[in-house]
Amino acid sequence: MAGSTLGTIFSISTWGESHGTGIGVVIDGCPAGLSLDTSIIQAYLDRRKPGQTKYSTPRKESDTIQILSGIFEGKTTGTPISLMIQNESQRSQDYSELSNYYRPGHADFTYDQKYGFRDYRGGGRSSGRETAARVAAGAVACEILKTLGVEVCAYTKKIGSIAVDYSRCKKENILSSPLFMPDLTASAQAEEYLSSVLQEQNSVGGIIECIIHGLPSGIGDPVFQKLDASLAKAIMSIGAVKGIEFGEGFAFSEHLGSEMNDSFMYSNGKIQKYSNHAGGILGGISDGSEIIFRAVIKPTPSIAKEQKTVTTTGQPTTIQVHGRHDPVIVPRAVVVVESMAAITILDLLLSSMTARLDHIQAFFKKIRSI
Amino acid sequence: MAGSTLGTIFSISTWGESHGTGIGVVIDGCPAGLSLDTSIIQAYLDRRKPGQTKYSTPRKESDTIQILSGIFEGKTTGTPISLMIQNESQRSQDYSELSNYYRPGHADFTYDQKYGFRDYRGGGRSSGRETAARVAAGAVACEILKTLGVEVCAYTKKIGSIAVDYSRCKKENILSSPLFMPDLTASAQAEEYLSSVLQEQNSVGGIIECIIHGLPSGIGDPVFQKLDASLAKAIMSIGAVKGIEFGEGFAFSEHLGSEMNDSFMYSNGKIQKYSNHAGGILGGISDGSEIIFRAVIKPTPSIAKEQKTVTTTGQPTTIQVHGRHDPVIVPRAVVVVESMAAITILDLLLSSMTARLDHIQAFFKKIRSI
Amino acid sequence: MAGSTLGTIFSISTWGESHGTGIGVVIDGCPAGLSLDTSIIQAYLDRRKPGQTKYSTPRKESDTIQILSGIFEGKTTGTPISLMIQNESQRSQDYSELSNYYRPGHADFTYDQKYGFRDYRGGGRSSGRETAARVAAGAVACEILKTLGVEVCAYTKKIGSIAVDYSRCKKENILSSPLFMPDLTASAQAEEYLSSVLQEQNSVGGIIECIIHGLPSGIGDPVFQKLDASLAKAIMSIGAVKGIEFGEGFAFSEHLGSEMNDSFMYSNGKIQKYSNHAGGILGGISDGSEIIFRAVIKPTPSIAKEQKTVTTTGQPTTIQVHGRHDPVIVPRAVVVVESMAAITILDLLLSSMTARLDHIQAFFKKIRSI
Amino acid sequence: MAGSTLGTIFSISTWGESHGTGIGVVIDGCPAGLSLDTSIIQAYLDRRKPGQTKYSTPRKESDTIQILSGIFEGKTTGTPISLMIQNESQRSQDYSELSNYYRPGHADFTYDQKYGFRDYRGGGRSSGRETAARVAAGAVACEILKTLGVEVCAYTKKIGSIAVDYSRCKKENILSSPLFMPDLTASAQAEEYLSSVLQEQNSVGGIIECIIHGLPSGIGDPVFQKLDASLAKAIMSIGAVKGIEFGEGFAFSEHLGSEMNDSFMYSNGKIQKYSNHAGGILGGISDGSEIIFRAVIKPTPSIAKEQKTVTTTGQPTTIQVHGRHDPVIVPRAVVVVESMAAITILDLLLSSMTARLDHIQAFFKKIRSI
Repeated sequence: MAGSTLGTIFSISTWGESHGTGIGVVIDGCPAGLSLDTSIIQAYLDRRKPGQTKYSTPRKESDTIQILSGIFEGKTTGTPISLMIQNESQRSQDYSELSNYYRPGHADFTYDQKYGFRDYRGGGRSSGRETAARVAAGAVACEILKTLGVEVCAYTKKIGSIAVDYSRCKKENILSSPLFMPDLTASAQAEEYLSSVLQEQNSVGGIIECIIHGLPSGIGDPVFQKLDASLAKAIMSIGAVKGIEFGEGFAFSEHLGSEMNDSFMYSNGKIQKYSNHAGGILGGISDGSEIIFRAVIKPTPSIAKEQKTVTTTGQPTTIQVHGRHDPVIVPRAVVVVESMAAITILDLLLSSMTARLDHIQAFFKKIRSI
Repeated sequence: MAGSTLGTIFSISTWGESHGTGIGVVIDGCPAGLSLDTSIIQAYLDRRKPGQTKYSTPRKESDTIQILSGIFEGKTTGTPISLMIQNESQRSQDYSELSNYYRPGHADFTYDQKYGFRDYRGGGRSSGRETAARVAAGAVACEILKTLGVEVCAYTKKIGSIAVDYSRCKKENILSSPLFMPDLTASAQAEEYLSSVLQEQNSVGGIIECIIHGLPSGIGDPVFQKLDASLAKAIMSIGAVKGIEFGEGFAFSEHLGSEMNDSFMYSNGKIQKYSNHAGGILGGISDGSEIIFRAVIKPTPSIAKEQKTVTTTGQPTTIQVHGRHDPVIVPRAVVVVESMAAITILDLLLSSMTARLDHIQAFFKKIRSI
Repeated sequence: MAGSTLGTIFSISTWGESHGTGIGVVIDGCPAGLSLDTSIIQAYLDRRKPGQTKYSTPRKESDTIQILSGIFEGKTTGTPISLMIQNESQRSQDYSELSNYYRPGHADFTYDQKYGFRDYRGGGRSSGRETAARVAAGAVACEILKTLGVEVCAYTKKIGSIAVDYSRCKKENILSSPLFMPDLTASAQAEEYLSSVLQEQNSVGGIIECIIHGLPSGIGDPVFQKLDASLAKAIMSIGAVKGIEFGEGFAFSEHLGSEMNDSFMYSNGKIQKYSNHAGGILGGISDGSEIIFRAVIKPTPSIAKEQKTVTTTGQPTTIQVHGRHDPVIVPRAVVVVESMAAITILDLLLSSMTARLDHIQAFFKKIRSI
Repeated sequence: MAGSTLGTIFSISTWGESHGTGIGVVIDGCPAGLSLDTSIIQAYLDRRKPGQTKYSTPRKESDTIQILSGIFEGKTTGTPISLMIQNESQRSQDYSELSNYYRPGHADFTYDQKYGFRDYRGGGRSSGRETAARVAAGAVACEILKTLGVEVCAYTKKIGSIAVDYSRCKKENILSSPLFMPDLTASAQAEEYLSSVLQEQNSVGGIIECIIHGLPSGIGDPVFQKLDASLAKAIMSIGAVKGIEFGEGFAFSEHLGSEMNDSFMYSNGKIQKYSNHAGGILGGISDGSEIIFRAVIKPTPSIAKEQKTVTTTGQPTTIQVHGRHDPVIVPRAVVVVESMAAITILDLLLSSMTARLDHIQAFFKKIRSI
C-alpha cells in the first residue's frame, strides 16, 4: 500500500517535500516512441507556477523541470521517466515556529499522529507543492492522449459565489483569464472579490469543472475500477478537494428517472445520446459522449486572520499564519485536475486493449507479421 | 488492472451475474481468529434483500449466504474466505428481448462497446445484485472494525426533495424506518412520495450519509491513498452513485477559510477540534473526529414509462422497462455504502500498523517474547 | 499483499482447503469471446486427478469443475470467471490426531506460528489440493495462449536418479507414460523404483522441465517483472518446488562466456540464435526461441516411516504419517507447472500490448473505425 | 504492471540508464523514525562500486549517493525517500557502434523487439549499473532489518569450478576477500583463475549463497506470496541470475523423504529442527531457522573474444566487445543479492503484522492508550 504510487499500466510515483532538495516523479509504463522534451512539460508546469498574479503566493519558483531518465534522442524509451524540480525559494525560517503548534485546516496534527513527528517546513509532503510533480507526469499523459484524439480540459467554474456557465463561454478564454475562468466578466468580478478576501486576511473555496473530449466508448470497468470511481480517487487525492460529482451530480437526488436517463439515438453513423446527464459514463464505462465532472476545493487553510489552536503539547494558543499563501487555491489547481484526470484516463485506456480476445488476436497477428 | 478486486491488505474479489448460478466474493487477507458464522453475515445481507417493502423490487430472493472456505471451528483461519449466494429467482425470460436494444441509463450499450457482446439478462454483472457480494464482505469488515472500536453507520438522508437532519434524529430510528430514514415523519412523507412516483411509472434519486465513529487519528495516507480518496473510489464504485462529498462538501466553495477551518482545543485529555467541517480528515489522514461523507444516488434507470432508444443495430424504437425494479435505490444501498466504507477503512487501518519504526520494533519484540 | 492473488491483467485468486466444502478460483481479466465449457477445463484437471496409478494417492476425487460465472452462451464475457470443485472424499477423521503434533517437512508448525492456529485437516490450505484450482485457471490461460500460437508443455525429467533426455523423446510420449516421462524405458524404470520406495514407506523427489513454444520476441520486462523472474515466482509458489533454473541453469556457473553466449544469425527471414543456452530470455525479455526452465520438486513429506517430531506443546514424540499420499509429487505436478507458466506468460503477453506508442495508436485507430 | 516497482508495503521504484544523467530509486513505505544519512547507504554502495580490483570494470565511478527527500533532521519521515547517483564516467562514444548490431548474450535484440528502438549506450536500462539503485534501497531495508534482529549475509560460493564450503569459513573473511569468498585459499585460486580468463578475453559464471539470520518464524504466505517464491522473483530479477534454489535445492531430486524432512525438537525453550534441508521455509513460511538460498550467475556476456552476430538489419558480422567489463559478475553481485533479499524479507515481515486479529487488537489498544 505504498501511498505515493498511482496507476497500474501507466504508473506514477511522486516524491519530495516543500522545503527539501526538490520534488519529482517517476513515470513507469510510459510507452516507447513519444516525442518529449523539457519545454513540453514546462508549459504545463507554468500554468500552476506560483507568483504570477496577486491572487497566488508571491513565493518565486521557476519550477524548472529536469528529465533525468527515460528519453533517448528526443523520444521516450519505454523505461522509467524520472522528472525533477529543484526547490529554489525555501525560506524555511518562515516555518520554524510551526514545529510547536498545529495549524487549523492543515495536516500538521494528523501527520504527527501517523508518523510520530513531521517535517514542519511548509507542510512537507502535504504541501500543494507536491502537485507540481503530478503536473509534470500529467503533461506526459496529456501528450499521449492527444496523439490518440483525447483531450482533457478543466477550468475554474466557481470562486465563492461567482460561477460561470460554460455553455456560454469560449474555451479559448480559459487561458485569457488569470483565474482560468472563461467568462471574462465573471473572472473580473472574482478578481475583485479575491482582493477583498485578501484584505480581510481570509481565503475562499471554489469549484473546478473538467471535460474530457474524444474518449472512445468502452473505456473503464464494470466493478471496482469504474471510470468514475478511478477518476474520483485521483481527483480526491488532490489536497484541497473535498468532493466530486459526475454529470448532474448531486442534482440527481431531486430528479426523476424520466428526466435523468439519456435516450439513445442514431446519428452521424453512430449510436449517440440526446442528452448527457450521466456525464459520459454508464455502468463505469465511457459511452462516447463527453466525460464531465466537478470538484469542490476548500478555502486555503493558511490565513493571516487570528485563529485558536493548541501547541503540540496541547496548550491553547492563537495563530496567524503568515508566509506566502494563495487566497484561493482553485486557479492553480485547474491544471492539477487536468493532470490527474489525464493520468487516470490514460491508464484505463491502455488497460482496455486487453478486453476482447478478437482484438488481442488481431494485435499479435499483426505484430508477428511485421 | 483486474477490475473486480479491491484492497491491498484486506482485499475482496467479487464475481457473478444477476442471472447466472450465483454471485460471490473471495476475501483475502482477513486476519485469523475472528469468530464468524453465516448468521452474522446474513444479518447484513437481509438489510439489502429485495422484496421487503412495496418500494423495492418484488423479486423474491432469500439471499442465503454460504461459507465455502476460510473458517475452521467457528473462526477465520487467515486464509481466503469464499462466500456465495445462489441465485433463486432468475426469470431470464423477462430479459430476452433486452438483447436487442439499449436501455437508457443502463450499461447495456457500454458493455457491448467494451466487450463486443454482453450477458443481457438483468444487467449481468452491472446489476445491483453484484452489491450483495460486497455486503457479505462488508459484514466481515464491520465485524473486525467493531472489535477495534470502530463503527460505520449510514442512513438515507434524502429522497427526492425530502431530507432529514441527522443531528435531530435518534440513530436507533434508522432501522425503524422501512427507508432507513431516521426522521420517522420524513420517512412517512418519503413513502407517500414514492407511491406517487411508482404510480407515474417513474423513479427518483436521493442521498446517503455515512458516519464513521471511533476511528483513531493517523489513519490514511498523505498522497494518492488518502483516506478520502480511497473512500471516494470505493463508494463511487457502487453502480448508481454519481458523486461524493466530505464534511461540508460542495458548500466549501462558498465559504471563507476562517469559517471552514476547524480550530484545535485540548479536552478530555486529548487534542480535539471545536468543529468538524473537514469531516474528520486532514491531509488525507483521520483526525480522530467522526468521518462524515455523503453520496448521491441517481434515480433507478429502469422505469416503466415509455422512453426513446435504439436497437443494437441503431434503429430507433421505444421501450418500457417492465420487470421488477425499485422506484428508488437509496434504502437498499445504505448497507452497501456501509460495507464499502468498512472494507476501505479496515484496509487503511491495517496498513497504518507499519507507519512507524518504533511501533514495528515493539510489535516484533513482543511477538518474539511470546 | 493479499497472498492468494496472482497476476495483474489476467489475475487469479484461489480459495479453499483440502477438507472444506471445496476449492475454487476466480479469474479476473479474462478477455471476452473465448469459447469455454467445463469439458475443456476438465481435461486439464484430469491430468492431476488423484487415484489414477498406484504411485498417486488412492484418495478418490472426481475433481468435477463447475463454472459459476463469467460464461454466457458458451463464451467468456470479460467478467470474472468463478470456478469451483467440490471436495468429495474428505475423511477428516484421518487427520484429527494431526492437531496435536507437527509433521516434519509440512507447514503445520509454520501455520501455527503465523496464524495462531490452523485447519489441521489434510494440510488445509497448504495441501497439494489447492493446486487443482490453479490448474482450472491454467486451463483457461492455455486455451487463450493456443489461439495466439503459444504452447506450454511440461514433462517429468527426473525421478530420483532416473532422468530423460528430451531431445531424444517424442512429445507424444508424455501422455503415454503414467509418470508423464516421455522416454518410456526410463518411465518403466522409474515405476519400478517408485514401487521399491513405496515398500520402504518412503518418498522421493524429481525434476520437471517446461518448454514454451511460439512466444513472440519482446515479451517480458527489463527490471523487476522480468519474464524469468515472474515465472520463477509463479513456479516457486507451487508447494513442493525448491528451485528453478533457466536454459543452462546452474551449469552456467562452470562455463565461459564464449561457450554460453548464443550467437545471432539471420535465417528464414528473421533474426534467430545458433544455440539457446539462455533458455529463450535475454535481459528478462523473450528472444523468440523456446523458453526452457526446470523446477526441482522435493520428496513428498508425508511418509509412513517413523519420524521424530514434537507435539504442539513441545513434547518429543514419533510419528508415522498414514493416510493417502503420493510417493512422488512430480507426475501430478507436471500440469500444475504448465498452468502456472501459462498464467504468467499470458499476463506478460497482454501487458506487452502497451509497450509502444505506434502500436497503441494503430490499435485505437482501428477500434474507432470499426 | 509497471515493471520498475517491487514490493507492496516497503516498495521500491528504480529509474535511470547506464549513460544518462544518473540512476536512482524512490522508496515508498519506509517507516518513520529510522536514523539515516548518506554515509550509511554509501557503505553498501561501495561494496559494488566498479574499479576496485583488476577483476572488475576499470570504469571509474564514485557512485556517490544523494538523498533528495524523505529524511528530516536525520530520520526517515515515513514519506518517499528519493535517492540518486549521478553518472560520471559515461564515455558514450564507446557504444555508438553498438547501435548497429546485437551483442550475443545481451538484451540489445530483445529491447528492440519490445520497444521498437533502444538506448544503446552501455545497455541502457539493462546495464548492471541499474543494480546500484537496488543496493541503495537495499541499504535502507538492511538497516531496518538490523533494528529488528534480522541479518542478511551473502558471499561468493563459487567461481567457475572453484567453490567454498561455508561451514568451514569465518564470516568475517567475506570482506577480507576481494572476491567476497570467505575461504581465502579458494579466493586466491579464483583470482588466479580469473587472470587466465581475462587473458583469454573471456568471462566466467559462478554461484552466490545468501543466508538470512534471525528471521522470526511465521513470515511469508501460504500461496502465491510464499517467502521462497517472493525471494525467487526478487533475486531472479537481477540481470545475470539464471537460477535459484533453497536449502538442498536441486539435490532434493535425488533424495528420499526420510533423508530430507527436518525433524522437530524442543530445545532452548522453543521448537526447533534437527536439520535445515528445507532452507528455513516450510509451506512458504519461515520456520525460525536460517533462510538459505543460492543463485547462479551467468558469465559476463561482454567478452573481447570475437563472436558471430548480425546487424540490426540481419546482416552477418563479427563482434569483439571492448569497453570496460568485469570478467566475472559474481563478486559485485553479492551485495545486490543481499539487497534484493532484504527488500523482500522486510516487505513480508511488515505484512505479517496483520495476520492475527489478537495481534491487531493489542496493537490498536496500545496505540489508543498512548
